[in-house]
Amino acid sequence: MQEALKMASFASSKGEVPVGALIVDSQSGKIISQASNEMEERRDPTQHAEMIVIQKACKLLGSGRFWDKMDLYVTLEPCPMCAQALSFVRIRRLYFGAYDPKGGGVEHGPRIFESSSCHHRPEIYGGIEESACAHILKDFFERLRGLKSHETSL
Amino acid sequence: MQEALKMASFASSKGEVPVGALIVDSQSGKIISQASNEMEERRDPTQHAEMIVIQKACKLLGSGRFWDKMDLYVTLEPCPMCAQALSFVRIRRLYFGAYDPKGGGVEHGPRIFESSSCHHRPEIYGGIEESACAHILKDFFERLRGLKSHETSL
Repeated sequence: MQEALKMASFASSKGEVPVGALIVDSQSGKIISQASNEMEERRDPTQHAEMIVIQKACKLLGSGRFWDKMDLYVTLEPCPMCAQALSFVRIRRLYFGAYDPKGGGVEHGPRIFESSSCHHRPEIYGGIEESACAHILKDFFERLRGLKSHETSL
Repeated sequence: MQEALKMASFASSKGEVPVGALIVDSQSGKIISQASNEMEERRDPTQHAEMIVIQKACKLLGSGRFWDKMDLYVTLEPCPMCAQALSFVRIRRLYFGAYDPKGGGVEHGPRIFESSSCHHRPEIYGGIEESACAHILKDFFERLRGLKSHETSL
């Protein structure tokens, strides 16, 4: 999760919502792909860190399935889009940091992995390095609000 | 939907699950982007027709939001991943063809647009050209099963 936090920090420095993710081969411990949010850079709200690491890993592995040895680490609870994508690639374990009551799709909202139309459910470990993962997001949004109120007062 | 069906037919000819999608500017009637499934070609199960048209349109429009004049046509009920992506780009209307009780995320499964964590719900019109959209899928899977049983009998 420390590596994912570094990616989140990198996102923050570019003005992106600070979320970082990586995929690890559980057998070798090797990082297969890593990414941070690129929604602003690509002007595309589907460019979440999880979607990017999945797509990168598919390219590298030459396969979009049989990922039963791969684990995903992400600093924020995945949204419903990313949770469904993780089900499609049959990820083995999902480790996430901060919980997301407003936009999460794992422990909140539609709880994708509990749905009848979800055909693969990974093992789920939430709240890993929760304070650090939540802090980087809180700090980012506080600075953003600060900038906006500063602009308004000019 | 006729254009989306053509895309689905194109997918079928490449051995892809035949689903086609396009995004239309409701004011000009112009097609902004169109695509079919590319899951096999890219070896990536997240490459649904809807995700590809959204990502293409974001590039073309230079923006991932304020799509309140854009409509999406797709031959199959979107899965939860694609439904959430459509919510993120704030699509105006969703027109879909066949219903998908096993994998759909609009009228089935987690019903993404009805979730508390969904912050934009398009107008939804299901069952458009339903027979033709369902037929092309049924035909594809029947041929696939035929090929498999033929291989088994060799």
